[in-house]
Amino acid sequence: MCNNHQNITTRVLSVPSAKAPFEKTTIERRDIRPDDVFIDIKYCGICHSDIHNAHNDFGRGVFPMVPGHEIAGVVTAVGSEVTKFAVGDRVGVGCFVDSCGECEFYLRGEEQFCKKGVVVVFNSIGYDGNLTYGGYSQKIVVKDKFVVRIPDGLDLDVASPLLCAGITTYSPMKHWNVGPGKKVAIVGMGGLGHLAVQYAHTMGAEVTVLSQTMNKKEEAFGFGADHYYATSDPATFTELAGQFDLILNTVSANIDVDAYLSILNVDGTLVNVGLPNKPDQYNVFSLFAGRRSIAASNVGGIRETQEMLDFSAQDGIAPMIEVIRADQVDEAYERVLRSDVRYRFVTDMSTL
Amino acid sequence: MCNNHQNITTRVLSVPSAKAPFEKTTIERRDIRPDDVFIDIKYCGICHSDIHNAHNDFGRGVFPMVPGHEIAGVVTAVGSEVTKFAVGDRVGVGCFVDSCGECEFYLRGEEQFCKKGVVVVFNSIGYDGNLTYGGYSQKIVVKDKFVVRIPDGLDLDVASPLLCAGITTYSPMKHWNVGPGKKVAIVGMGGLGHLAVQYAHTMGAEVTVLSQTMNKKEEAFGFGADHYYATSDPATFTELAGQFDLILNTVSANIDVDAYLSILNVDGTLVNVGLPNKPDQYNVFSLFAGRRSIAASNVGGIRETQEMLDFSAQDGIAPMIEVIRADQVDEAYERVLRSDVRYRFVTDMSTL
Repeated sequence: MCNNHQNITTRVLSVPSAKAPFEKTTIERRDIRPDDVFIDIKYCGICHSDIHNAHNDFGRGVFPMVPGHEIAGVVTAVGSEVTKFAVGDRVGVGCFVDSCGECEFYLRGEEQFCKKGVVVVFNSIGYDGNLTYGGYSQKIVVKDKFVVRIPDGLDLDVASPLLCAGITTYSPMKHWNVGPGKKVAIVGMGGLGHLAVQYAHTMGAEVTVLSQTMNKKEEAFGFGADHYYATSDPATFTELAGQFDLILNTVSANIDVDAYLSILNVDGTLVNVGLPNKPDQYNVFSLFAGRRSIAASNVGGIRETQEMLDFSAQDGIAPMIEVIRADQVDEAYERVLRSDVRYRFVTDMSTL
Repeated sequence: MCNNHQNITTRVLSVPSAKAPFEKTTIERRDIRPDDVFIDIKYCGICHSDIHNAHNDFGRGVFPMVPGHEIAGVVTAVGSEVTKFAVGDRVGVGCFVDSCGECEFYLRGEEQFCKKGVVVVFNSIGYDGNLTYGGYSQKIVVKDKFVVRIPDGLDLDVASPLLCAGITTYSPMKHWNVGPGKKVAIVGMGGLGHLAVQYAHTMGAEVTVLSQTMNKKEEAFGFGADHYYATSDPATFTELAGQFDLILNTVSANIDVDAYLSILNVDGTLVNVGLPNKPDQYNVFSLFAGRRSIAASNVGGIRETQEMLDFSAQDGIAPMIEVIRADQVDEAYERVLRSDVRYRFVTDMSTL
């Protein structure tokens, strides 16, 4: 099943410089190595962190850049040593495409914590010294260990946001033991939040959505929320004092950490999956009063990503998406920035 | 064994107003109720939070105030329903003297999280509406459930600081599973820190002391530390990057949270037991990189306090103390504030 392609050219959407509009162009993918999988990308989701990178908000951007880490497609060739995948398989690729392969974190399936540092799917230097280019593209070559199988029950367009938004919300739920008897609050109901509600509900927790306004209340109940409060109303924090075992904060802006800590139960944890650019503040007394914790979580490992996809397919969990053409990505970025999306844009790569 | 005292007068050291010098005076203790234990106080430790309260740093001080929550003494009478203690028993009283007696936290032996709010041993309003007065005193009347037994292996003067400094450091070690194979850092080697080193070492962890200077290095090794670094040297944070499973911060001043988070291993926790007055700052990225947590811990329950005393007696864990007379307490406060104590002052109440 090995096809040793040479000079694999692929169409991509590329940002020539920070905040510039996307351009349609081409790049070369690497030749297929023995452990590589060659994928025809069908869909790629748009994540807020794509925008952060394309705008160089973190100051580590290398341009031109091809973003995209929510990749869903079909295998078109495999390297000589690949046994896990075959041509025609429906597969996904998420945030990273390589790790050291030997540290304790790799060995326990949490490659995201790789001691040598994972290779991220775009804007990252691979172990071979080459810059990586992401999923706003029609073809990609990825090491088999970093490819996951998309279950039959999930359409490829719907599956694509799960590769980042899905695992980012699923992983902390598992790590902090969400289940029956637990009270979970989801802060922000966007791309991450609307999936988080579905996971927490399906795992058996009592789910409260904390959104800036009451606008998304009915939709939240549709996703499985039991309660819904507006964070713009100060009474919310009084009414909910001491309630939650876990608060998953999906908002990227700075928050009033002490206010959120005050609605945690004893031993409760505020887990951040949104990444604000500026530091947050907290008062140690807010933690001390109930042995509370502040934490953050970063996607999940490959094994857990596969588990999340299987769980999602089995329990009918899916993002609500808006499929767009390649020439709509600039507009989609603007709409994400003004929270005008319900709830995830997915680009149809056949339009590229 | 019931002696129904009336008008129990006791000598006390009292602060007439915030930051004023101590005065020797007398107060009345309540009549012994059926579930009360009447204690002759032999020694009382001086905790930094006594000073915070006597100086009204937290703004909730009621004066005149009698501080003291590290009480060691001997039972001189018990109420009619008390079966657990008898006259002559060596006993201790720590930070709190009452709780609701019915909430889930009481039922699981973690009274410190009482939903109605624990009654603190001094500067607190009891459920009977009366202000509490603490251990800088010769006699005290305390509900039996909040009295612990001091094992024979512990002298009363040495035992007294364990009632706060001991349980404050022991409890988080147990909660965060300190044991063989774990790397623990203790920040600050004062009254709390020098006990924390002993507990972490005795529980089998590899212990690193992080102190401002190298001054206490030899003593740290004497208490069981395996490594010692000065936090004033920036190289410390580079050298120790990613090492610790638990950092116990015993310092009350604000710290560079991000620097300490950077020396935590994946899933490591920075636990504060010192209480700075001003908020701390952190960058979510510092947590995100290794699913790290920031937490705080507040003493421990009565059951765990007894366990800590038994553990300390069995394993020869004891604070290093300087016993002072009652007329030296003002000077002792000044010395604590300039960190001029190795490592805990204990007042001999027979000098009052």
